Amino acid sequence: MINTTTSVSVLGLGLMGHALAETLLAAGHPTTVWNRTASKADRLVEAGATLAGSATAAAHASPLVIICVTDPAAVREILDQQDGTLDGTVVINLTSGPSSAATEFVGWAERHGVEFLDGAILASPEMIGTADTTIIYSGPRAAFDRHAETLGRLGTAIHVGDDHRQAALLEMAGLGLMWGALNGYLHGAALIGAAGVDAATFAPLAAATLRAVADWLPGYAKQIDDGEYPALDGTLDIHLAAMNHLLTESETLGLNLDLPRYVKSVADRGAADGKGQQGYAVLVEQFANPA
Amino acid sequence: MINTTTSVSVLGLGLMGHALAETLLAAGHPTTVWNRTASKADRLVEAGATLAGSATAAAHASPLVIICVTDPAAVREILDQQDGTLDGTVVINLTSGPSSAATEFVGWAERHGVEFLDGAILASPEMIGTADTTIIYSGPRAAFDRHAETLGRLGTAIHVGDDHRQAALLEMAGLGLMWGALNGYLHGAALIGAAGVDAATFAPLAAATLRAVADWLPGYAKQIDDGEYPALDGTLDIHLAAMNHLLTESETLGLNLDLPRYVKSVADRGAADGKGQQGYAVLVEQFANPA
Ligand SMILES: NC(=O)c1ccc[n+]([C@@H]2O[C@H](COP(=O)([O-])OP(=O)(O)OC[C@H]3O[C@@H](n4cnc5c(N)ncnc54)[C@H](OP(=O)(O)O)[C@@H]3O)[C@@H](O)[C@H]2O)c1
Ligand SMILES: NC(=O)c1ccc[n+]([C@@H]2O[C@H](COP(=O)([O-])OP(=O)(O)OC[C@H]3O[C@@H](n4cnc5c(N)ncnc54)[C@H](OP(=O)(O)O)[C@@H]3O)[C@@H](O)[C@H]2O)c1
Repeated sequence: MINTTTSVSVLGLGLMGHALAETLLAAGHPTTVWNRTASKADRLVEAGATLAGSATAAAHASPLVIICVTDPAAVREILDQQDGTLDGTVVINLTSGPSSAATEFVGWAERHGVEFLDGAILASPEMIGTADTTIIYSGPRAAFDRHAETLGRLGTAIHVGDDHRQAALLEMAGLGLMWGALNGYLHGAALIGAAGVDAATFAPLAAATLRAVADWLPGYAKQIDDGEYPALDGTLDIHLAAMNHLLTESETLGLNLDLPRYVKSVADRGAADGKGQQGYAVLVEQFANPA
Repeated sequence: MINTTTSVSVLGLGLMGHALAETLLAAGHPTTVWNRTASKADRLVEAGATLAGSATAAAHASPLVIICVTDPAAVREILDQQDGTLDGTVVINLTSGPSSAATEFVGWAERHGVEFLDGAILASPEMIGTADTTIIYSGPRAAFDRHAETLGRLGTAIHVGDDHRQAALLEMAGLGLMWGALNGYLHGAALIGAAGVDAATFAPLAAATLRAVADWLPGYAKQIDDGEYPALDGTLDIHLAAMNHLLTESETLGLNLDLPRYVKSVADRGAADGKGQQGYAVLVEQFANPA
């Protein structure tokens, strides 16, 4: 049987790159892999992947090349090694970075006759290949469409714009949200832990809280886009009252106070601006404006 | 037809108290209401509620009394007005506050022959009465059980412990999480807004991000309870690399840098403690320990 599925090269086999290569391989894509430390390819080679001897060889092996390494500096090192023509190849960078990195790589792609997409994985490695995973891509729509089916193996593939900076911008926005949620969760776990309650007791309530917040976001987005923040749920003043309680509780339990203090400082600035009777989303102004 | 459903008094008709009274009334409970500013009861009275002339009269009107006002100081003012016996009455405080407030109100309840439950609403007013709403209660289990059906009208009612401080502790933990997520979202909305992208574009990705984080929490909780933090998803070092990108992007776009700096400061402390190759949940130690 002739395999007609697209061949793919995956450069970078850390936790995430390994999950990407594994998923493509399992879906039947002839997969070439490369990693700076070659041993990380062992399990993939056993599973049928082809190990390339160099990043250059890996990039030449397939019409679709995916790069997923630590950071843009590592991507730069890999791109700088490329020689020869890569005409017609689609290179996709799934390494996290600011949008300026995407701009830089587009310049490289233009010099090498490559179609470049910048992407961002809004999921963790073990989620790759499941419907819960969202991966966003920006850059030329035609290049995305050509490989949409293959990219769909990795998760829900969404083209977020022809402007190649779009994926990085949305990734950065999403990461700030993720860390905000994770830090809030860890502070909460530390708080109940200090009171002798285990983290497992808090986890289902915390998950319910996050799902509730997720449900509020479309309404918040509408307020932000309209620039009007009526207090449909709670006023900023009511939030502030409760922030003082969190500070009190955290103090009583001897926790690190940076998180409750930071949370309160943002709301205090909003209240000082006279926004106490408005909804919480009015604080978007505080994030936009340097103090 | 004789109405055999429990009569309820609701003291405090702000955004939340109003939603509580409205929902109980709609479910057929004879409902007595009181608010410091009486006019806030108008719509409820039109819908069939009885307006009490004083907080004391309201508390005497029903075997189940729910208080939901701004903060513990307001609860204290209401409790201080009570005279006469309230023997056998169950008083539930759904006002947010630190666990020390619950302890204080238990003292009051003992002096007045009242069974006291302290609760916390993990939802916004418009969600009251829906299955998505979780309300937690702590204090004597028997008092909770007696009114579980009535409380179930307001949302999923969960008794989290006989120790009356439990609901407040879990509420404080949940609030820190909520603000963490909301602030992360608002920073993200400000970030894409500064790049000319509207908040509506980010909302579905943000919601997907929060739902993904919610799915990770049981695993994080297990690591915290076990005290072991293997990097199953991303290492702290990989998070740190991406935090630097968020800082860069936020700087480039001229945003307020407090959030990305705070996020990075926590991870920096973890890395300085030699935890860079561990999973993100190892940072719980940073929240527990004063810097
Ligand atoms: N893990 C997650 O949950 C997650 C989620 C979303 C996005 N991401 C993003 O995915 C990317 C990879 O993350 P990861 O978790 O896979 O990281 P990781 O496990 O630390 O792996 C990093 C990879 O980058 C390679 N690398 C580093 N510097 C290099 C260089 N100068 N030249 C060539 N290769 C180099 C490493 O090679 P060696 O093996 O030789 O060191 C390794 O393959 C990051 O940008 C991350 O932000 C990760
Ligand atoms: N809104 C939410 O999304 C939400 C969610 C979860 C929990 N909660 C908690 O629910 C509680 C109420 O919130 P809310 O949104 O309903 O607040 P709100 O709309 O600001 O209403 C506050 C209520 O407290 C009353 N009050 C204040 N001081 C008082 C005093 N000294 N004596 C008697 N009554 C007094 C007010 O009476 P007047 O009308 O006379 O001013 C009003 O009825 C808070 O603890 C809040 O943290 C709210």
